[in-house]
Amino acid sequence: MRAAPTLPVNPTATPLGILAGGGPLPARLADAVRQAGRPVFLIALKGHADPATLAAYPHTVLRMGAAGAILDALREAGCRELVLIGTVRRPPLASLRPDPTGLRLLARVGRAAFAGDDGLLAAVIRTLEDEGFHVRAAQDFLPAILAPAGLLSRAAPDAAATADIARGVAVARALGAADTGQGCVVQGGLVLAVEAIEGTDAMLARAGTLARPGPGGVLVKLVKPGQETRADLPTIGARTVRAAAAAGLRGIAYAAQATLIADRAALIQAADEAGLFLLGLDLDTITRTGDDS
Amino acid sequence: MRAAPTLPVNPTATPLGILAGGGPLPARLADAVRQAGRPVFLIALKGHADPATLAAYPHTVLRMGAAGAILDALREAGCRELVLIGTVRRPPLASLRPDPTGLRLLARVGRAAFAGDDGLLAAVIRTLEDEGFHVRAAQDFLPAILAPAGLLSRAAPDAAATADIARGVAVARALGAADTGQGCVVQGGLVLAVEAIEGTDAMLARAGTLARPGPGGVLVKLVKPGQETRADLPTIGARTVRAAAAAGLRGIAYAAQATLIADRAALIQAADEAGLFLLGLDLDTITRTGDDS
Repeated sequence: MRAAPTLPVNPTATPLGILAGGGPLPARLADAVRQAGRPVFLIALKGHADPATLAAYPHTVLRMGAAGAILDALREAGCRELVLIGTVRRPPLASLRPDPTGLRLLARVGRAAFAGDDGLLAAVIRTLEDEGFHVRAAQDFLPAILAPAGLLSRAAPDAAATADIARGVAVARALGAADTGQGCVVQGGLVLAVEAIEGTDAMLARAGTLARPGPGGVLVKLVKPGQETRADLPTIGARTVRAAAAAGLRGIAYAAQATLIADRAALIQAADEAGLFLLGLDLDTITRTGDDS
Repeated sequence: MRAAPTLPVNPTATPLGILAGGGPLPARLADAVRQAGRPVFLIALKGHADPATLAAYPHTVLRMGAAGAILDALREAGCRELVLIGTVRRPPLASLRPDPTGLRLLARVGRAAFAGDDGLLAAVIRTLEDEGFHVRAAQDFLPAILAPAGLLSRAAPDAAATADIARGVAVARALGAADTGQGCVVQGGLVLAVEAIEGTDAMLARAGTLARPGPGGVLVKLVKPGQETRADLPTIGARTVRAAAAAGLRGIAYAAQATLIADRAALIQAADEAGLFLLGLDLDTITRTGDDS
């Protein structure tokens, strides 16, 4: 079963340009858009995208630093709308080896963009729009990839897990306000681990080694306040569930409508097999009720 | 050379009770107080304190959970003033095995104390004061262990390191406001690692594996806003410097007057040998100038 796009698609539209990082989402998006009758053209970001999953679609493989080549390829393919999707490990500046256009864009993006992860992405999107492209969100074409509010799993958080979720939300929000990671693990009121650039899997592995006896903890993954939602929304999947289970956790809480799920059926199956809960948080409610909830 | 206490000491005072965790500070405090003519009595917390360094002082080894035995021992020794000093890895509640008095005190401390690290310490201090003891800060007896404002090292931060320090301060403050860790590592504007309960050494080791090419990052260790300063101030020492150097960092920034240094000469020697800077931050100034600095 494949999810069909729910937005009307104009078959005469220009090809949708997809700047593709890693993971299954770029191919899912390309598939859905093409099934709806719109052509796609993918830039497979070298070292990030998985070329095998993109082989079925018109694409070219380019380095992130080759900004001029990327813009040229998108224009030659006739793209006017772009989506940025898939995981991209932030490159060290020194390894970017920008081409002449890349250097010019980097100079325009400027130093401020390197003050935080979000600053960089917002600057990349602003730059693409300055270059005449319209940057769209993946969820505009694949609304089913947004995590819904409420429970997806059979298991549900008990009172202790609910308290851990509340504490995790407070920590993740404080981190997000400083434009840092989006995740943390809390067990029995104790913050076992906080995510920076090591990634959620590495944080979960660490949390597993730091876990205390007693009921397991929870993973909280949130979007940053004011985060650019056209790229870099947190993603959860079956692999996240398995890593959380291996770390002894009892569940995962995430922002409803602001978290991507590549394959919902696989996610739910993995959670139910492991007995973990999956809870989509309504962040507006959290903001309103705060610690009184 | 031994640091002499700078406060007048009444030789007829009751013995100073020292609840001793790990590291060299408990013995340093005991030595300074006894040299000033005041007797000491130590509780070496089992599994935390190093009994060898405390052998020269009247002491008894007791589990943290044995609260009744600890209070009895302190009273029998005639202690009325207490200092909590040394590193204590927070015990899992399940391994505490409280004695009857410990159970009663735990019930009084209550659930709120487990909402954060600071909550627990504040509750322990409140409980000790309820039991009739006066809890003093180690720095009341050893003012020289407080880190001074400004540079201690020959090396100084350049513009890039200064920007990394500013970002680290913002992140550490956000974390502290959520009563979580006190440390982070920043390199070139990128937050490489954030400390939760794994400890600074483990965070530094991780940051070393996540470091990017280019100039090395900085370690920022801060006190939490509103933190109980009678216990649990961050500590830096020669070991911290060596771990930071091994992680490829260029320096350490910490809160002046709110960070403990067990052996200043050894700290400075380690920093100068490794070429790292040691910078004591005036947090009031940071608060005033914010990101404009």
